[in-house]
Amino acid sequence: MSPAAFIAVDWGTTRLRASLVGPDGAVAATAQADSGVQSVAAGGYPAALDAACRPWFDAHPDIPVLMAGMVGSRNGWVEAPYAPCPAGADEIAACLCAVPDAGRSVRIVPGVECCWPDGSYDVMRGEETQALGTGVRDGLLSLPGTHGKWIEMRDGRISRFATFVTGELFAAVSASFVGRLAEEPHDDPAGAALAAEAARPPGGLTRALFQARARVLGGDLAPRGVRPFLSRLIVEAEIAGALDLFGRPKIVHLVAGEPQRSIYRAALAERGLAVQDYDTPAVTLAGLKTIMAARS
Amino acid sequence: MSPAAFIAVDWGTTRLRASLVGPDGAVAATAQADSGVQSVAAGGYPAALDAACRPWFDAHPDIPVLMAGMVGSRNGWVEAPYAPCPAGADEIAACLCAVPDAGRSVRIVPGVECCWPDGSYDVMRGEETQALGTGVRDGLLSLPGTHGKWIEMRDGRISRFATFVTGELFAAVSASFVGRLAEEPHDDPAGAALAAEAARPPGGLTRALFQARARVLGGDLAPRGVRPFLSRLIVEAEIAGALDLFGRPKIVHLVAGEPQRSIYRAALAERGLAVQDYDTPAVTLAGLKTIMAARS
Repeated sequence: MSPAAFIAVDWGTTRLRASLVGPDGAVAATAQADSGVQSVAAGGYPAALDAACRPWFDAHPDIPVLMAGMVGSRNGWVEAPYAPCPAGADEIAACLCAVPDAGRSVRIVPGVECCWPDGSYDVMRGEETQALGTGVRDGLLSLPGTHGKWIEMRDGRISRFATFVTGELFAAVSASFVGRLAEEPHDDPAGAALAAEAARPPGGLTRALFQARARVLGGDLAPRGVRPFLSRLIVEAEIAGALDLFGRPKIVHLVAGEPQRSIYRAALAERGLAVQDYDTPAVTLAGLKTIMAARS
Repeated sequence: MSPAAFIAVDWGTTRLRASLVGPDGAVAATAQADSGVQSVAAGGYPAALDAACRPWFDAHPDIPVLMAGMVGSRNGWVEAPYAPCPAGADEIAACLCAVPDAGRSVRIVPGVECCWPDGSYDVMRGEETQALGTGVRDGLLSLPGTHGKWIEMRDGRISRFATFVTGELFAAVSASFVGRLAEEPHDDPAGAALAAEAARPPGGLTRALFQARARVLGGDLAPRGVRPFLSRLIVEAEIAGALDLFGRPKIVHLVAGEPQRSIYRAALAERGLAVQDYDTPAVTLAGLKTIMAARS
């Protein structure tokens, strides 16, 4: 086995992804496990990491480990602090949280917090690493998800960010009354188009959500379009809110997999916004490399 | 037993409320049952009505019955049509839906539908009767609920209305992740005050909802204030949306029981809006009397 620089670990709520990174930055090997933070019992973290990386530890006994994501949350291995905005690779690398009981050099990337002048407060864990991994020095990033983040980069640092409960709200209302007329397969694209219209009139999101039901009763919306309607409607609310907060950028840097990538691209294109795509695992790894480099 | 004019029935999702109304409009007797529309099986409506009103039917064999609410929905006894806006007592009385298998004169008040110029579509069942029962000829009514309604009256007719999924959304997000840090008793009023602030910054509802979690992590919000925060936040979104849609009235006519009455009064007062209160069962009965009178 070739000499290795470090093990990069993306340890989220549902999954662990590890990469063995060589001194040249190339990935020599990867590993995945379902041992996300939600399924690891207290005290089970050393064994879970060992199970994923044992052969690498055997081959490189002193290799350091750098981890990002919910592994640093209150329910994770060790609660890592939040670095305040503005936060770049240097500030984040200066706040790395050492894991005392790992039996080797294991460090967790801190989350980042943002205190807005109006009193709003935002936190993230994992997305800060992705943001750095995009390499965007100045611009606006969108990272869709259960708790979607919009991150503003200035001079290569995270200057401000905001959270939108888009994925969570979609799941909640899909299972609730306004989503009850939905039928599988959830594939009628007319539902998304109708939502783009329904998002525009005054009245706000709680008014527009009722349209998922009323327009089926009224015959405007097919049951197979209800889920696409709800999804697009909540995404439209997020995008409108983000543009209100951060202003309208020339381009949106979109870190997303499918189906979010397509949904966001369509919604952003209709607003005349250009999109640059990034692959989530790739920017996570790039971010961990950037932070590792800033450390040394 | 004195001669009677009709039986007024408010038959909703969870309950049936019946009043024996005399020729002078006075209520001679009342009855209640848990046989709401959600608990009556298909074909079970005649027996459910009979169980609630049997002594009155025995005493007044030919007494007519007028019913309002979800009993006229697709899952009710008979699906009553929707009367279009603008709809007053005359238009609604002209659309009463006769129940064919009742064995007596039983009629259901139609719902009302509103087709907005922007394509939005709204429906209601039951609230049209309450609106007429308030006696408001010109003004703006707020009827909080699972699906809260704002109803504009012009010349004694329902001219326009809109639905907000306030109660439904509160239940959904309370059970979801952003509500997970809530602790009983849900009684910290500072949560509601914080929500009134958090509703103001740009970003919209899906951004503000995340504050229910982030501000607990940040120490601004006590776990006992999370539910009050969520409740007030979603109510603020409804009120802001309704004022956008209908304009700012001199007074809001509020048809609500507790705790909605207090929550809405506080939120409306902070916006400098006067409130006139109405009792829901009273206006429902008054509305049924008005419609009955318009019929003859």
